[in-house]
Parts: sequence; C-alpha cells; structure tokens
Amino acid sequence: MTKIQNIKGMRDHLPQAMLLRQHIVGVLTQVAERHGFEPLQTPVVEYAEALEGKLGDDEKLIYRFEDHGGRRLALRYDQTVPLARVVAQYAGQLALPWRRYAYGPSYRGERPARGRYREFYQFDVDIVGSNAPLADAEIVAVLTESLEALGFPGFTTLLNHRQVIGGIARASGLDEAAAGGVYRAIDKFDKLGADGVREELLRSGVAPGAADQILALVQTNGDPGDVLEELSGRLAADARAVAALENLRAVVAGLVEMGVAPERYRVAPRLARGLSYYTGLVFEAITPHWPEGSLLGGGRYDELIGQFAGRPIPTVGLAFGIDRLHDVMEELGLGPRSSTTARAYVTIFGPGQAAASLALARELRAGGVNTLIALDIAAGLGKQLKEADRKGVRFALVLGPDELARGEVIVKDLRGDGQRSVPRTAVLELLRGE
Amino acid sequence: MTKIQNIKGMRDHLPQAMLLRQHIVGVLTQVAERHGFEPLQTPVVEYAEALEGKLGDDEKLIYRFEDHGGRRLALRYDQTVPLARVVAQYAGQLALPWRRYAYGPSYRGERPARGRYREFYQFDVDIVGSNAPLADAEIVAVLTESLEALGFPGFTTLLNHRQVIGGIARASGLDEAAAGGVYRAIDKFDKLGADGVREELLRSGVAPGAADQILALVQTNGDPGDVLEELSGRLAADARAVAALENLRAVVAGLVEMGVAPERYRVAPRLARGLSYYTGLVFEAITPHWPEGSLLGGGRYDELIGQFAGRPIPTVGLAFGIDRLHDVMEELGLGPRSSTTARAYVTIFGPGQAAASLALARELRAGGVNTLIALDIAAGLGKQLKEADRKGVRFALVLGPDELARGEVIVKDLRGDGQRSVPRTAVLELLRGE
Repeated sequence: MTKIQNIKGMRDHLPQAMLLRQHIVGVLTQVAERHGFEPLQTPVVEYAEALEGKLGDDEKLIYRFEDHGGRRLALRYDQTVPLARVVAQYAGQLALPWRRYAYGPSYRGERPARGRYREFYQFDVDIVGSNAPLADAEIVAVLTESLEALGFPGFTTLLNHRQVIGGIARASGLDEAAAGGVYRAIDKFDKLGADGVREELLRSGVAPGAADQILALVQTNGDPGDVLEELSGRLAADARAVAALENLRAVVAGLVEMGVAPERYRVAPRLARGLSYYTGLVFEAITPHWPEGSLLGGGRYDELIGQFAGRPIPTVGLAFGIDRLHDVMEELGLGPRSSTTARAYVTIFGPGQAAASLALARELRAGGVNTLIALDIAAGLGKQLKEADRKGVRFALVLGPDELARGEVIVKDLRGDGQRSVPRTAVLELLRGE
Repeated sequence: MTKIQNIKGMRDHLPQAMLLRQHIVGVLTQVAERHGFEPLQTPVVEYAEALEGKLGDDEKLIYRFEDHGGRRLALRYDQTVPLARVVAQYAGQLALPWRRYAYGPSYRGERPARGRYREFYQFDVDIVGSNAPLADAEIVAVLTESLEALGFPGFTTLLNHRQVIGGIARASGLDEAAAGGVYRAIDKFDKLGADGVREELLRSGVAPGAADQILALVQTNGDPGDVLEELSGRLAADARAVAALENLRAVVAGLVEMGVAPERYRVAPRLARGLSYYTGLVFEAITPHWPEGSLLGGGRYDELIGQFAGRPIPTVGLAFGIDRLHDVMEELGLGPRSSTTARAYVTIFGPGQAAASLALARELRAGGVNTLIALDIAAGLGKQLKEADRKGVRFALVLGPDELARGEVIVKDLRGDGQRSVPRTAVLELLRGE
C-alpha cells in the first residue's frame, strides 16, 4: 500500500481548524453584506491566456495544464483577474458601481514555508466602477469593521497613495526609471529600519542627499491632517503629488464621516506595497501583536479591471488572506476553539429506550441544539459516555427505564462532574441556557 | 484584445445565482451541524496516484497535470477519495465514528451538457466507522430534513440494498458474473419502464423466464414492512439477501424511531444506483416535480474509505449536488430570488449632508440592515435614486437639509410608489419590520 499524503503547501483542514475558518468567513461575509457587497463565484480554472502577461517574473508560479481537448488551462492565481474577466463578459448584467465579494482558493507554485501556501484562500472585497474617495473610504471601513468583529486587538491601517511615493522620489531628484528602486527600498522600512533603507537606496543608485531627503519625508508622522499638511508643503511643486494628497485628504474625510475610529488608521508615507498595479490609495493593516508582517492590504487599481473590457474601470479593493488570519488568530487565541459542532450527546440505554432517546434528540435539534446520538446500542452506556467525552461534547443525556418512567432525563455535564435528573420538558431550556 | 471567456462546463455564478447557492449550502450546513457533523476541507489538488485505479473507464475524465517539481497531480474527482486519504493520514486525531461534512468543487473532463458540468460543487455528508443501521437511518434523516428545509415539495427517498438486488439476480438463476448486466438494466427502470428493462435483460443474456421473475420482484410495491416481508418470502433461500432484508428492516425501524415521516421513504427493490462501490444500503431521493431524474443519492460503502488505511472502515453517506439542487430550485421557484444583498440605499443630498447620511447608514448596519450608500455625491439625487432602483433595493432614504433640520428621513419604498417622512429615530424599526 502506497502511503499517500496531501501535497506539500496544500493543507487539509480538520474540524477544529475548519470551525475557526468558517467563523472567519462568516464574519467577513456578514460585514461585506452589511455594506451591500454581492457574492461572485468564478471557476478555479481559467484559460491560461487570461492569466498570462500580467505577472512578470511571477508568471512561472502559475499552475498550467492542458484539458482533454488540448486547451491550455491554469489554476487561478488570484481572484482579481477573474473579476476583470467577469466585468467584461457580463457588462450588460452588472450595474456599476458594483460591490462584489468573492471567497475561494487560489494557487501559486511557491516554495512552501510558514504562512506561505500553494493553495490559499482569499476573501476579496472590491468596489468596481467608482473613482470616488468615498469608495476608498468604504473599503477601509469594511476592513476595520471586519478586524474588529474578528476581535483583533490594537490594529491600525496605514494609508498612503502611489503618487505620494512617486512625488517623494521625484522631489528627491529621481526620475521615473529610478522610482522602482525607491519603492522597493521604502517597502522594507519596517523590516530594515531607517539605516537599512538608506543603504538599500544608496545601493540602488540614489545619491546620499536624496536618500536623506526621502528618509525624512517617509518618516513624517502624526495625526493624518498634520502629516498631509506637512507633505503638501514639501511636495507643493509636484502636481501629481498634490493631487494625490488632496485625494488622501478626501479619503480620510470619508473615514471620519463613516465613523471609523481615529486610532484605526494613520497616513504613513513609508507604505509602498509591492504590487505594481496600484494607481491610487494603498493601505495595509498591521498589529503589534503580529510582528511578522501585515495582516492584509489593498488599494486602488484603476487600470487592471478594465483590461479585458478594453477601457479603464476604476476599482478599489482588498483581499483578506484567510490562511494568514487563521494563523494569527490561532496564535493570538481569537475566535472559537471548538473541535466539535455538537453540544449534546444522547445515549441509548437499550433497545427499549431507543425511540424515546431518538425523539429527545430530534426535539433538541428542532430547538436549535446540535445533538449527537449513540449509534451502537449494543455498546452500553459506559462506552457511549466515553465517546461523548472524546468528541468534546458538553452534555451527555441518559434516558434509562427509570427516567423514562418518571418523565425525566439525566443530564451529565462533561466539563464539570455534575449530573442531575431534570424533567424532560425542561431539558431543551437547560441546554440552550448553559 | 483577445476575447476571453470562462471555460465551457465551468460556470461563473453572478450574485443572484450565488445568493441561492449560499442559501442552499447554509441550510445543508445547519442540518448537518444539528446532527453533530463536523466540517473537513481538503485541497482541490491531490497526487494523481491517489485518484488512479479506482474509476475504471472514467479514469480518463480526471484532470491531470505536473507541478513545478515534475510531480503528477490531479484535480479531485469527488470528495470521497480525499476523505479516505484523510482517515488514513490522521487516524490518531479522528475519533470514530466520525460524522463529517465537506463542501467544495470537484472536476471531471466530461462533455458539458444541461445539468452536467466540468466544475461542480458537492456537499458531502458521511458517517465514517460505523456499520450500525442507525447510521444509515441518520444519513437518510439528514437527507430528508435538508430537502424539507430547502422547501422541496413531495419528494420521496427510495431505499434498497445491494444484496437485495444481488439476491434477486441469484434467485432468477443468474451467477455473479451476469449480475452486473442485471443491475445496469434495472437501474434504467424509471427511464425505460418494465418492457424496456425486459428487452435490456434479454439482450444481456438473461433467459425470458428469469427476466419475468426479476421484473416481478423489482416491482414489489407498498408499505416498507409489506415489501420487506414479500421479498423475504421470495428470497428466503438466499442467505445474503435475507441478511440484507434484515438490515433494511433495521434501517426502516431507525427512520421510524427518528421520526422521519412515512411518506418520505419507500423500499424500492428496483433501485440499483450506478456506482459499484456500494456494499449495503443504497438510496435515491426523487420528486415528481423533477421528472428528469433523481435529486441525489448515496449509500453504504464499507470497502472504499479504508483503502488507504489498509483495513475496511464501514461508511455510509451521500453527496448533495449543489448544481443539481440549484437548477431544480430555480426551475421550481424555491429559495431566495434576490439579486442584491442590500435592503436600503442611503442617498447623499450634498456635501453638507454627507456626515449625517453616512452616520445613518452606519446605524442601520449596526442594527442589522444591509445598507448601500451613494458614492458619487456630485451625481445628484435623481441619479442616486435610479442606482438604488437598478440595484433592486427595497428602500431609498433621503436626508435633505429640511429633513435634517426636522430630525426626519424620507423613506421611499421602491417597490410601491410610497414615500413618507419618518422620524429619524424610527427608521431602523421601520426597515427591519417591513
């Protein structure tokens, strides 16, 4: 017999993990629907052509294969390219602006590592077809409400704008061609610190004076209004940066009007974000309780979604990485920790009590209590109670001949040592309550 | 610009379809959890080896490919083989009997047709590690409660046992080798009728007398007890059939004790089910409102799950085909028909009213009302109301300067023609109620 395992980097999720993941997805779905986002599901498989020509070097990470008719297919790399395809393909059926959420797996042939998987699940939230700053603000509000609802402590969302970083690079005397190196260096600020970034900037050809100026600008700190004002003064000569700062100011105003708590966001000119397709706002949620990196991020990308439709379709959005959230929540002890869905276990004393016991189980279920039943009547009560305990169920119920005669049920609390006889009519309320 | 579409047989599900599908999965999840089933998720991709050698001719339908390290991978064909792998791989962590549910896509390179897709979603429910008839009965109870909760009218589940059909073949003088042709012929009873099956039996080499006897036996009809008694008489000489009928009798007794309504099931000796891996109970739910075939089916398969573990692990289960349920429910008008998640749309009269309008939206959401907001303040009220209407939202709310001054909100019912001024404090209750 061959020993067959799961593929490395593609995980099995056993019940305890799944219950936490379902909790996460349930919370994200509820917050998204509260804002009127609508669900979309696209196939896991796309024509390879749809994914190609967009990822540069990373294109080698795409899982490609041929179907039975020799067509070139690929496992999706993210849920953004499928969204772009859908927006073009069903243009007549989709009223813009369109708020859509999507949940499912994507695939990348990466070297598996802690927190990096070949199959990973994302919950995407995007507003397609609006360039209004309120759309940007709503995405950040959804992010904030979601992390709050999941119970994340002390998180903050860093806000920046692509053209603020561009402006910082330009103001330091660098042309567009050199800007890429600046983005990449700044992106490592939290990892390398100011000195490390300075070295990196020098290595990528930035003059020492320019590097110092960049470092001073990206470390501008304080209240969003103050940071925006200071940057506006320093970048006043750069029209694109001025417009970007104006846009950020409108996004922040939207956050205030939407009631997002001020401690939940900061303007952080050092935030670069890796992905080159962002055109406006970029953001990233961080928490000091997870020093290894950001929880998630997103931004505005006005060119990408329209690529199949052949015209720009302004879009802002984010992707919650379920695997990341799962790992962090497990580490921080957030969310449910149960390994069972059941609250009660109904034993079956013997054949003569089967009907009454099963009727009790049915009643409990109808009343909303998840209830396991013993399957093996011959096993005897001791073995059944052991099973209930092993399953992690809170309450085991016994309906022996005496209890049946008295109209009672023995309720054993498997977490405590307690056991008591309860009138049968009172069992449902008791299990619901405790 | 290349026109890129979804792959044939792999569907995009736009919001209206998704809301129905999420409703279906939500109901199935709730019923499964009521019975203490626990969620499992396995990767969409498995080692090709895990899937091979189990499907006979159908093996050519597997989507196979190589990963970046040259390993042979495959998209899963169903959720049963992954379950078998998991049961072997995590034996120490899983207490048997184990009730597990699983929801996700599987893949088959079939010719796409109405109701047959290359990517299809299944919701599987299995009890692993029990051969008790109560386990069989519980699976049928889950099936029944699920279809009832989904609102299916007038469905019935046909019950049979693999060794009842075997016994019928043997009692008609056929050996095991000929039995396969008998199963296949009987399986077409609902399509071909008695005469058609008779012809098919004769074509597969069954003698006319034996064919008539088979036909008489498989058409045994009536109350489960009567059918079982009649078959017991006719198959009394066949020990395996006698044991099978005894087992069916115990399953039916379990259904009675579990309170499954008697009109919801029948013993139907004509039910064969295509899949060769069933070893005991087989069942299929049908409804006269869907003449094209069964809604879904399942059964007991005591050999398959233990194949990776190297020992038999008795298992009974079923798979709800979400695509089939979706198609039928759409046809029968069951379930939600909404294309939006939002119930209210909060307009923004002008910049001076933005903060108050967004605060109102926040309040409604906190009160559980899914609420869209206008994003483009400059668009003006007329355009915003048109958007609300196009989205299919029921209520549009207007907070103009006059309303703000009076502490009121205009609530427009977009389904009726109604419009009224309501005290702001009463809006939430109004939207919740209607």
